[in-house]
Amino acid sequence: MIKAAILGYGVVGYGVYEIIRKNEQSITRKTGGNTITVKHILDLRDFPDHEQPELFTKNYDDILNDPEVSIVVEVMGGLKPAYEYSKAALLAGKNVITSNKELVAEYGTELMALAKENNVNYLFEASVGGGIPIIRPLNQCLAANEIEEIYGILNGTTNYILTKMVAEGADFASALSEAQRLGYAERNPEADVEGYDACRKIAILASLASGKYVNWRNVPTEGITKITKSDVKFAEKYHAVIKLVGMAKINDGKVYSRVCPMVIPSGHQLSEVNDVFNAILVKGDSIGDVMFYGRGAGKLPTASAVVADVIDAAKHIHINKLITWKAAKEDFMIDPETASCQYFVRANAENVIDSFPGAENLGGENGEWFFVTQDMTEADFKAAFAGRGAYIRVLEA
Amino acid sequence: MIKAAILGYGVVGYGVYEIIRKNEQSITRKTGGNTITVKHILDLRDFPDHEQPELFTKNYDDILNDPEVSIVVEVMGGLKPAYEYSKAALLAGKNVITSNKELVAEYGTELMALAKENNVNYLFEASVGGGIPIIRPLNQCLAANEIEEIYGILNGTTNYILTKMVAEGADFASALSEAQRLGYAERNPEADVEGYDACRKIAILASLASGKYVNWRNVPTEGITKITKSDVKFAEKYHAVIKLVGMAKINDGKVYSRVCPMVIPSGHQLSEVNDVFNAILVKGDSIGDVMFYGRGAGKLPTASAVVADVIDAAKHIHINKLITWKAAKEDFMIDPETASCQYFVRANAENVIDSFPGAENLGGENGEWFFVTQDMTEADFKAAFAGRGAYIRVLEA
Repeated sequence: MIKAAILGYGVVGYGVYEIIRKNEQSITRKTGGNTITVKHILDLRDFPDHEQPELFTKNYDDILNDPEVSIVVEVMGGLKPAYEYSKAALLAGKNVITSNKELVAEYGTELMALAKENNVNYLFEASVGGGIPIIRPLNQCLAANEIEEIYGILNGTTNYILTKMVAEGADFASALSEAQRLGYAERNPEADVEGYDACRKIAILASLASGKYVNWRNVPTEGITKITKSDVKFAEKYHAVIKLVGMAKINDGKVYSRVCPMVIPSGHQLSEVNDVFNAILVKGDSIGDVMFYGRGAGKLPTASAVVADVIDAAKHIHINKLITWKAAKEDFMIDPETASCQYFVRANAENVIDSFPGAENLGGENGEWFFVTQDMTEADFKAAFAGRGAYIRVLEA
Repeated sequence: MIKAAILGYGVVGYGVYEIIRKNEQSITRKTGGNTITVKHILDLRDFPDHEQPELFTKNYDDILNDPEVSIVVEVMGGLKPAYEYSKAALLAGKNVITSNKELVAEYGTELMALAKENNVNYLFEASVGGGIPIIRPLNQCLAANEIEEIYGILNGTTNYILTKMVAEGADFASALSEAQRLGYAERNPEADVEGYDACRKIAILASLASGKYVNWRNVPTEGITKITKSDVKFAEKYHAVIKLVGMAKINDGKVYSRVCPMVIPSGHQLSEVNDVFNAILVKGDSIGDVMFYGRGAGKLPTASAVVADVIDAAKHIHINKLITWKAAKEDFMIDPETASCQYFVRANAENVIDSFPGAENLGGENGEWFFVTQDMTEADFKAAFAGRGAYIRVLEA
């Protein structure tokens, strides 16, 4: 019998509770005969109508000091008090499972090291890609590969908005309103639409893939708020769609990572990923391209990833699973200005194209002109472009 | 230091050797400091020009009786002598890693039980989907789900042939020749084109997902040899493509599984999987749809899946990972005649359609008529159809 505690009874916390109850039998089979039950739920709110009101507490010490609890599920989100709570649990020899990408991206290095020292596990499958299995495959299934590239559609809200803009010719503001109406976007959508959420996620993936901590602050991040209807229309003329992409390239131990809208040619696997779905394309030196696709958010998908980690922890009580990356002291980030790609340009004057030999002219409308440059470095592009409009990077096929 | 032996130095065996040598450093990091080296290679052939000729042996006892060898990589294929060799290794307390779908589909139940008894592991990630991580995600990442459906494009050879037929209007024979010329199909292509390979793979996935051994003999299997150019053309009129699909539905502990060509409406994720790529769509009760996509065959993709298992075994010396299914004694297979779907029909007379109320008429050519029925059971369909032509099942959207 393994006892777990849930910190935070929001959407995901409730989903975790529900799945553990509903699938008790099959979970017991999967742990090899060990039944998992929830003994405590920490939340500041009251849940008087809950079927097990006796589980609730407002005092974290009830969990921390309970020697029966071997697994702590942290689904509170945010850094405070999640960081202190997670640290205290690991120091007390308890496993910690989280869906908190912000915390993993900020303090993951320290928390994983603490887990290792205390012979327990800090697992975070649900922090990236919601229900899509990606952390474990990256760490384990692809262990035999050097990971060379990761391209991910990592945020369901922005993907929904961009899908809407492509399919219905909607502009950003109305697509956002629709997403908010459907509950796909929060009332304050900044973390999603400015790319902050995707940034934390690609930083986690890049850290795992490179084995060294990629600080999310070193990942240049642009959101989708400046994408226009005309951008979408002329991208279509170029047989492409626009998606928010988190990418990382690893070359000789050095990492280039970025979050930005990208023009993705149709036919590319990521171009077909629509609505709130997420997908992560991983390129390994042995395996070639592998893609993982599914629902990147939502109560049950995310909760099912958390519960999978709970089961894994139950199977590895006091065995550290060696999911880890090193603190990186030296500078191993590639200067983004030296990276190169093609650029999809919206120019504010027709003659801007003259600065780009070999550019493909897509035409124009309403005083804006569109073209696609040849492959060039960021630095060279920006020098030639001189801010005469806007641009979107093109994902290479 | 962990010593491994490779049984069979064919394409995959060579790939395993190569990856373990090339990625030694990163592999050591991933095992937590344990270096893995190949100590023996068993093959009946001579490799006089090999860089390490001293590794080769023709006598399995050299491996079995070497107490230093803790991991045996069986990439010989076939049942004999792979079965005896695997069994002996497990009984000797050695981990066995395999890419041998035939062996897993036939003797997996016994070999996994033996592994458990001897506190070692029998791992077979590479047996399905080549390099695509699917066995581990199914067993572990999706542990928190009841798996309800699996639809897989599991065979690269047939997918290449069908892609060619769609893209170039080639007929089966010439697409097969082209596949053979490129090395994607074997000189004797029966195992691929008759669906036997896909049958073993879906039987393995269905066993894992249901937790009970699904005997491949109970999976009705049809290949792609009877698909015509006209089928492809009229499927296109129906906005669909034809693919060879291995499917399993699990309902209330009962399993319906089948391998057959299917008409897949465009827009469905599997319709976009082309050439030699494989993809497996899994539906879980909590997670919804998840898809895994990548190269289903080839030296390095398959070898990288084998090496990932080797690393996993190295991390779990004398800890059984509980990847298993039960021997199923009672009858838990759903009678395929009671399953229902729509049928894409090629009829040998125009009036056949009159037997199917509500059928969608697609027209005809050269004395053949095409239509799509409404949803109906196999038994009802076959009674009404009475063998007046040919048919392909339609994958529901």
